[in-house]
Formats: sequence, structure tokens, C-alpha cells
Amino acid sequence: MKKTTILDIARELDISFSTVSRALNDHKAISEPTKKAVKEMAERMGYQPNKIASSLRSGKSKTIGVLVPRLDVTFFSSVVHGIEAVMNENGYSILLYQSQEHFDREKKGIETFLNSQVEGIIASISLETDKSDAFAAVIKRNMPLAFFDRILPDLEVPSVTIDDYRGGFIATEHLIKKGRKKIVHINQYRNVNIFNERLRGYLDALKHYGLPIDEDLIIKGDFSLDFGRQCICDLVSKKIDFDAVFTLEDFTAMGVVQQLKEYSIKIPDDVSVVGFANEDFTSLVTPSISTVDQNSMGMGREVAHLFLKLLKKGDYYKHTPEKFVFEPTLLVRESSI
Amino acid sequence: MKKTTILDIARELDISFSTVSRALNDHKAISEPTKKAVKEMAERMGYQPNKIASSLRSGKSKTIGVLVPRLDVTFFSSVVHGIEAVMNENGYSILLYQSQEHFDREKKGIETFLNSQVEGIIASISLETDKSDAFAAVIKRNMPLAFFDRILPDLEVPSVTIDDYRGGFIATEHLIKKGRKKIVHINQYRNVNIFNERLRGYLDALKHYGLPIDEDLIIKGDFSLDFGRQCICDLVSKKIDFDAVFTLEDFTAMGVVQQLKEYSIKIPDDVSVVGFANEDFTSLVTPSISTVDQNSMGMGREVAHLFLKLLKKGDYYKHTPEKFVFEPTLLVRESSI
Repeated sequence: MKKTTILDIARELDISFSTVSRALNDHKAISEPTKKAVKEMAERMGYQPNKIASSLRSGKSKTIGVLVPRLDVTFFSSVVHGIEAVMNENGYSILLYQSQEHFDREKKGIETFLNSQVEGIIASISLETDKSDAFAAVIKRNMPLAFFDRILPDLEVPSVTIDDYRGGFIATEHLIKKGRKKIVHINQYRNVNIFNERLRGYLDALKHYGLPIDEDLIIKGDFSLDFGRQCICDLVSKKIDFDAVFTLEDFTAMGVVQQLKEYSIKIPDDVSVVGFANEDFTSLVTPSISTVDQNSMGMGREVAHLFLKLLKKGDYYKHTPEKFVFEPTLLVRESSI
Repeated sequence: MKKTTILDIARELDISFSTVSRALNDHKAISEPTKKAVKEMAERMGYQPNKIASSLRSGKSKTIGVLVPRLDVTFFSSVVHGIEAVMNENGYSILLYQSQEHFDREKKGIETFLNSQVEGIIASISLETDKSDAFAAVIKRNMPLAFFDRILPDLEVPSVTIDDYRGGFIATEHLIKKGRKKIVHINQYRNVNIFNERLRGYLDALKHYGLPIDEDLIIKGDFSLDFGRQCICDLVSKKIDFDAVFTLEDFTAMGVVQQLKEYSIKIPDDVSVVGFANEDFTSLVTPSISTVDQNSMGMGREVAHLFLKLLKKGDYYKHTPEKFVFEPTLLVRESSI
């Protein structure tokens, strides 16, 4: 890419480099007509002052990198919305990068941000991430870093999460209070903290209300609409008795609902369903799906505030990082009323 | 942000700046033990070679900026998915910026990209954008630019769009062939080319099949689920007779469906509904909503390919730009079967 330089402008106007430079910086030694001529030529030739070079010197690009697993789910796009709102109010721009749930892409994203002159990174880790090296490199460079939702607990950085244990507990408690006794829980096979916590909440709610834990009712797989459908097919073909399903997230719950409908199993009369995350579609479908809301906009706003505080402090890694934990809210809809 | 420099490493090891520099570049004049010591210290101190400075020199950051109105709708997140897939296959990373449909934010996004050392920009313009200055500045800097879906027709850059006129035509034609005679069309009030074309397709289909154009049945507003609901309320309260609704996009169609259900108007028996864009939820809701698919993944892959071709050519603005137009596909579902 050939960019217009001060030298090009100087050549075009047949004046010196330093005259152009001083004219562009409104130096008092330069006459108004010369300033005008230089600025017009700069405009005409598409000259842009080299802000990267100057941000290299000052370290202030007023841009923050946000690294997320994916943006095609309501939860993440909504957290990003919250982050953007606060950051824009404070004069910062946001650049986004999707890891698509892959560890390698996440590393690439961090590298891309480091090379793009962002002032710091706000991130939620991919499902594959179980090592902290890539993010540790950010800290090593003394660049501010904050996590939301999915964090690396061994890194001492600010974070905003929700109480996933509590989410699993209240979803299960709600089903128990509706008289359900054989509650299926669909979770996943990876060792991901937020999902483990939802499972722990489910188990503790059963214990708390004196219900037995039945291994047949705890299913682990990869979460998706299709996996939700598959789980119901398997339960039915294995003739396992159940009267409710609590899924780790909403797409799986949607699959559960679709398959139950195909089997003409009545929702919620025969089987109640509760999902997790309050994806947009859960309120649109019939029956509408009960779910656990994570206050995603609030989470975005909060992590942005923590991050701005961090930026102001300057010595990013000399303080005990602030950790904020949101309380989840159960939204009861037609699928479990 | 204080970064580790070569000088810091030199000071720490008490050797010269040039020895450190040459050791890091594997210069043959430097002994293996020294190289090892320098590299270990560089690693320990979090030293990162200044890739921005080197990309400033070469102009090759291997990063492309993608500027989109918003990522919380299936259409845009899915186009971005297509762009990412092709770009990653070709060794490029993608940074994303959301204009949130605002002209000012879009300008800010372009500026942020220009300052972030991307090699080029792929964009879809905001609803507010009716001037091309901000994007013209990208061209002036001789930086590659391509558009998808929503374009600025006066800028001579490659683009990938769909035939929106054809989309409006086939949606309306389908309703006519189902025997519908009083087809409402909900569009919007701004002068946005893609939406104007959908309206033109609707009008031409009516003409083609000899149906009258009834101004009472053409509604313009701001599109949203709530606006769709409002339109049905208004039609009913004004006692305007209608037997089908074709909306400019799917969220509006969702609102139409919800309000028709609330009035116990049967879908599709009393009123058929067709949306536009194939948003994820349209296949999940009951009744599922007929819609016009825009091959969003394909659009993303195609614009990425055009862009890569442009990058290879080098002289970005000396050729007639390639323009690719996709054919839309009608997906007939329960709402208009």
C-alpha cells in the first residue's frame, strides 16, 4: 500500500519537508496562505498523519480488543453490546475477534490484537482453552486484561462472572417445587468450569430436597440443538422414565422441546423443560422456554467499568484484581409453568 | 504501557544493544551460549519484537477489518462466518467492528481500522449512511475495500449483493399463487436501496399477475418485532381486509405472527406470512415462518474471494471492480404453506 507522505506533499508544492510538517502542525512561523495551501494539498492527496507511529510512542490508541468465543449467540453479542456502550461513552472503540471456540484461533486473536495496537484486552475463553500461556503473555507485556463469564482462574486479573452454581440450583429447585421427581440434566463432556458449576448446582438441589441422584438421568455430550433431540430419542428408546429436563444451555433445550413435540409428549404437563442463557429465541418459540438469565448486558457494562478502572490505575498487576459475581435470575415460561 | 525493549535485555545481561539484536536475529557472529542467554532473558522479560513497526514498513499485517451494522442478527453473523472461513484458510485474521446502524460509529470504525494497521476493509453500510466520504478516504489511501449486501453504488469497488428485487418478487408471487389477493407489504421509511428493491419486486409481482396496487396495504415504518405487531393492530382497528403479509425482514414477520395469534387469526388459513433473511428463529417458532434466504455464508465466502483477488492485483483502483449478485431462494414453511 503506497501512502501519501509529507515528502509527497512537499514535492508537489515544491516547498521544504519541514515547511509542510510545520504547516500541518499549525506552527506560528508558517504564513496562513502556506498553511492553507499545504492543508488543501494534504486533503487532495489523501494524506493521513501516521497515527500508528504516534500511538506507538504514546501507547494510547483508544481502542480495546474484545476476544469472544462467538458472536452468533445472544449471550455473547449482548455482553459485547454492554461493553461497547460503556467504552463508547468513555471515548474508546472496540475491535472484536471470534475464537470460534478453538484454542489456536484464540492464540491467533491475542497475537492479532497485540499487533493491532489495542490498549488492552477483554476476553472470554474458548471451550478448548485449558492453558493460560497465551493470556499470560498479555500480562507479561504489562497490557491490561479482564475476563468475563469464562475465565482462567489461575490468572490474577479482574473478572465478571455469574454464579453458575446458583443458576443450576435455582433451575432444579424450581422443577422440584413444581412436583418433578425425575429430572434429567444434560451437560457436556469437557472440563469447563461454568458448566461443571451448573451440574454441581443441579446435584446440590436434588440433595437439598432429598431426591435421589440417578446417573441414568445425567447425560454428557456436546451441546447443540441436535444433541438435545438425540438425548430425548435415547431416553425414550431406553425406556427411562423422566418428568423434566434441565439443560446446560438453550439450544440444547430447543432440541429437547422439538423432539418431545415430535413424540407428542406434552410440555409442561408430561415433561417440563428449563434451559440456560436466555437466548432470544427462547421467548419466541411455542411453548416459550423457561431459562436462566445471566444479565448479559449488565455483565458487559460491569466488565467494561472494571477495565476502565484498571486503565486508570496504571500499574495493572500490582493490585488485587476486582472480581464481580452476578446473581442469575430464573425466567419461568410456558415450558415449565 | 511499558514494554520490554532490546535495551532492557542488554542492560539486564550487561552486554551491548547490538549483541542482543543480533542474537535475537540468529546472527552467525554471535555464539550459541550468548544466543541462548539472550533468548531466555527475552522470554523471561516478556519481550515481543515490534511487529507493528515492521508491518508499518512492509504494509503486511495479514489482518483484514470487517465493518458491519450489527452482529446480533443471523444474517450478518453468518456472512462474517463465511468471510472468516475463507480468510483463515488464506492466512488472514479478521477484526470486527459494529456500526450499530449509525453513520458516526461507522466513520469511527473506519478510522479505528486505519489506525489498527489492517491491510484492507470489507464492509456493509449502516442504515443511516447516505454519503460516501468516509469510505472514499479508504480509497484515497489506496487501501483495498469491498462491500457486501448494503453498498454505496457511487464507489467503484468490488461487491457481493443479492438480487433484492427478485427476492421481493418471488415472495409476492408465491403468495399470489397460493390464491392471496390482498397482500400487505411492510417496508421502512428510510431511502435504503436493498429495501426499496424488495418493495419494487412486490409491486412488479402484483402488476405481473394483474392484481391492483392498494396504498392501504403498503406500510412504512422502522422495522422491528414491535412494529410488526403494531401494523397488525392498526390494520385490524382500521378494518382493512387482508389475507397475506410480506415483510421486509424476519423480526417484523415475527411480530406479525405473534399479533395474528393473539387475535386468533389463523396462520396460514386466514393470513399467510412471509419474511426476509432466514434468521435462525424463523425455523424454530410455531408456525415456522416462510422467508427469503440470502445465502449469507456464500455471500461471505464470495466477498472474501473477491477481496483476496483484489489484494493480489495490487493496483486496487485501476481495474473495473468485480460485482457479484446472488439469486435469493424462497423457503416455504408453515406460515404460508
